[in-house]
Formats: sequence, structure tokens, C-alpha cells
Amino acid sequence: MNVFIIGIGLIGGSMAKDIKRLYPHSTIYGIDSNPSHLEEAMALDLIDVKASYDDLDKANVVIVSIPVDGIVTEIPKILEEINEECVVFDAGSTKATLCKGLEDHPKRRNFLACHPIAGTEFSGPSAAIDQLFQGKTNIICEIEKTAFKLQEKALELFQQMGMRIRYMNPEAHDKHIAYVSHLSHISSFMLGKTVIEKEKNERDIFDMAGSGFESTVRLAKSSPAMWTPIFKQNKENVIETLEEYIQNLEDFRQLLLEDDYRGIYNEMNNTNKIKKILKGIPLNK
Amino acid sequence: MNVFIIGIGLIGGSMAKDIKRLYPHSTIYGIDSNPSHLEEAMALDLIDVKASYDDLDKANVVIVSIPVDGIVTEIPKILEEINEECVVFDAGSTKATLCKGLEDHPKRRNFLACHPIAGTEFSGPSAAIDQLFQGKTNIICEIEKTAFKLQEKALELFQQMGMRIRYMNPEAHDKHIAYVSHLSHISSFMLGKTVIEKEKNERDIFDMAGSGFESTVRLAKSSPAMWTPIFKQNKENVIETLEEYIQNLEDFRQLLLEDDYRGIYNEMNNTNKIKKILKGIPLNK
Repeated sequence: MNVFIIGIGLIGGSMAKDIKRLYPHSTIYGIDSNPSHLEEAMALDLIDVKASYDDLDKANVVIVSIPVDGIVTEIPKILEEINEECVVFDAGSTKATLCKGLEDHPKRRNFLACHPIAGTEFSGPSAAIDQLFQGKTNIICEIEKTAFKLQEKALELFQQMGMRIRYMNPEAHDKHIAYVSHLSHISSFMLGKTVIEKEKNERDIFDMAGSGFESTVRLAKSSPAMWTPIFKQNKENVIETLEEYIQNLEDFRQLLLEDDYRGIYNEMNNTNKIKKILKGIPLNK
Repeated sequence: MNVFIIGIGLIGGSMAKDIKRLYPHSTIYGIDSNPSHLEEAMALDLIDVKASYDDLDKANVVIVSIPVDGIVTEIPKILEEINEECVVFDAGSTKATLCKGLEDHPKRRNFLACHPIAGTEFSGPSAAIDQLFQGKTNIICEIEKTAFKLQEKALELFQQMGMRIRYMNPEAHDKHIAYVSHLSHISSFMLGKTVIEKEKNERDIFDMAGSGFESTVRLAKSSPAMWTPIFKQNKENVIETLEEYIQNLEDFRQLLLEDDYRGIYNEMNNTNKIKKILKGIPLNK
């Protein structure tokens, strides 16, 4: 099996690790706009061959794991190069713009729109993790637009990687993911900013911050190059979630100003039920 | 050594575990307003004896690890009961109200105001952790108001537990801790609230949420009974940090509305330096 991975970072690199383990006779071709990432992926033995779009005609599977602005512009070009039996899938955090852009593509049936909910705040080939996808959800959009045999091929790979599959339409995906992923990143980045701005003497933060702070600002380490196009493509949903979040913070502030501590207790107590929800989220080992 | 622990939860219970290990000949007396916590602490072997304030005259060390409203009302009473050689310290997340309230107490010199920056989102005796305080910062306020010999006694204990000591005045403590701890909790609780409100079908959250979401809302599992009095006692600082945080979120929203993606990139890129700061925070093993 010839597997092409376009974008050898955290997600592409982790897929490479799984595929090498699950399909030892496969050959993994790497394509990356950053030559040093490609060198690093070779050195880390994530890929077997450095490749280019000219080699795509021999691909059986193409995985596109690049920032979402690149996904939208590159997938039409990739589809032009592949053979009829090849399946192409992405791993981007937005789906509506991509699916809309591909709806009239002559090779639409070779593409499967995917979003594996997996990752860390790190990026690049060295961030790749063994069995990253074990127990994680992979959201697939517009499954019916992909050729049946190519659906089967991709689903077998996902199953071998241990993923749980969930089907959604692209608009529902983008709306829900704004709440459970995109908003968390903004909340974390702005929390980090608020503290850094105030605490110019970084030694003070370092000494007084505990694991709770670390947890809430962990996502503020994420890559701006990856996240800027996500916010751009999902602008409307993100603004809606952000406005609701700001309103809830305003309400909390108002309770404090009014010394309504019973109200504050109730706000926290009602939100404690998040415990039950969080229990179901698989974490990286 | 007779050690009394008032409030056998995460912090008191973890202190008990350390003291049992470090001072095997000590006797640990537990006092808790919740009888089932006291039973649980006995069953978990955190304490040796169930006690009451009437027994406090035989204490060498008293650790007060209860919510901060209780700390303010109980410590004056506890100081009345202890002998002259006994040191009493607390572990509360606010310091100004407490220190102000005790400034004219006849036994002020028997008290040491402490805030060990350690813990998890869990509470109760079963949440106690071995060596929780190893490598963690303990902030001590108004050290000069504690009798020298009693300072020494407490500091030896903290050193044995592996804590790093930092001295601050109570007002500076409350101001800085609002940024690196109290604000994180509000941000997390309100993020949890925003998502729960929107996603009435909890199955959707569960399936689409990843480890990033888990990390940012982890603190929303925290105890409302512990956190309500913290927000009350540190109201002014908390409101200030909250207003700055809301303003930063508003600014981010404005950049999105204006399609200023270069601005959004820069916001995230500037905040990425939090990486360097977070590297220094000791996490629980």
C-alpha cells in the first residue's frame, strides 16, 4: 500500500506511526511545504520517501493533515493527480467551507471529509505520538458523497487505528466543534494574555501558578498558523460561542458586584455536572 | 508530636499522609464538621484519633485546612484553646481578610499565614495524595508576626514536605493569586456553563470533546463550597482580573468581526510565550 501524507506534523506523523505498525509492508511518502519538517520526518523514521505531487498517481491513500486554509486550496489539486482507486481524506477542524468547495469537483467521490478529535498543544513531526487515535472519535461528514469502496478502505484503516466513527453534516460539525474545541482555545489564549499582561515580572507567575493554571492555559501553547485559519473558516459559529461565553462571564461579574454569593454557588454547582461528561473523554496516555 | 488537622480533605489529608511518613511517632488528631469525612479519614488511616476543640491544648501543630470563610471564623477560637508552644497555620487561598482579622489577637504570634499552591479539582479525604507538596510553592504572609521558634517549627515541616517557600504581604498575595488561580477557575466554570447550556444533548459533547476541552474545563469540577468564599473574600481583585479578561475576549471578538486575521495571529503568537512560563510549574505525579 502506498500511503501519501501531506503535512507531516502531529496528526500526519501520528497516522504514519500507526500505519507503519499496522501495515508493515506499506510505503509512506511524505510531502511537506517545510523542507526541515520533511528531513525531520525522515530522521524520525515517520516516512520512507520524500515525495511531491508528481508522485501522487501511485497513491492508494492520501492523508491531508495541514492547516485548514491549505486543505481547502490543496485538496482540489491533489484530487487532479490521483488515480481512480485512491482515497483522499483530511483531518481538519472545519468542514463546511471544504465540503462546499468540493461539491462540484469531478473527483468528489475520491474524497472523504474527516476530523479525528485527537491531538495535543504541540506541533511538528517530533510531536507525533504512537496510537494517538486509539479510542478517539473521528467525525466523518457527507459519507454518502464518497465512493462506497473507498469509504470501506478508509473505514478499515480508522478501525485498525482504534477510532470511533461518528457521522455528521458539515454545518452541524462546525457548529458543535466551535463549542467544544474552538472556544476552549480562545478562552485559553486570552487567559494567558490577561495574566502575562498583568504579571510583567514572569517570576511571579511561575512561583504562584499551580497545576490548575497550567491546565486552563495549556492550549495557549497551540500553533497560531494552525488556529488562525480555523477561526477564519468558522468565524460565525466562533463569534456566537464567544458572545455567549462573554455574557456568562459578565453575569458572573454581576453576581459578584451584587454580593450574590448564593447565585455564585449555584452557578458553580450547576456546572459541576461537567464531571459526568468529562469522564467519557479519552485522554492521551 | 501531636498534630491536629482541622478539615480532613484534599489538603489536610495530604498533609496527614506526609506527616505520618516523615514523623512516624507523631499522633494525628482529626477534626471535621462533616462526621462522614472524619469516619472516612479514619478508615483511610489519614488520622489516628477523632478529636474536638477541647483536645487542642495538647497540640504541638494545628493545620487549618477548611474553606476560607471557616478559616476566618475558626482560627481565633482555635488560638484561644492552644498552649503557648503550639503553632497554628492555615492553607487558604486568600490572606488579606484573615491577617487583618487576626492582627490584634493576643495569640497572633502562634499563627502562621500560609498558602501552599497545591491541589487538584477533587475534594474530601479520598482526594488526599502522597507527596502532594513536593516541589510546590508555599506562600507565607507576615512571617515577622509569628514567634521565631514557631516559624522554625513550621518551616522545618514544610522543608521536609519538599516545599519551596516564598514570602509576600497579604495584599500582594491576594492580588497576584487572583490572576494565576482565581480567574482560571471562573474562566473554566463559565466555559463549562457555556457548553452545557448549548449542548443540551450531552452525548454530543461527550463524542466531540477532546483532551483540549477536558483540560480547559477541568477546574469546573471544583467544589463550590470551597470556591464561593474565596471569590467573596477576594472580590475586588477578582472583579478586576475578570474585567481585564472580558476585555481581552471582546478585543479578540472585534478582530474576528473585522476579519483582522493578522491581528488574531499576533494575539496568539504573543501569548505562545506562556510555554516558557508553564515549563516551571511542578505538576502532580
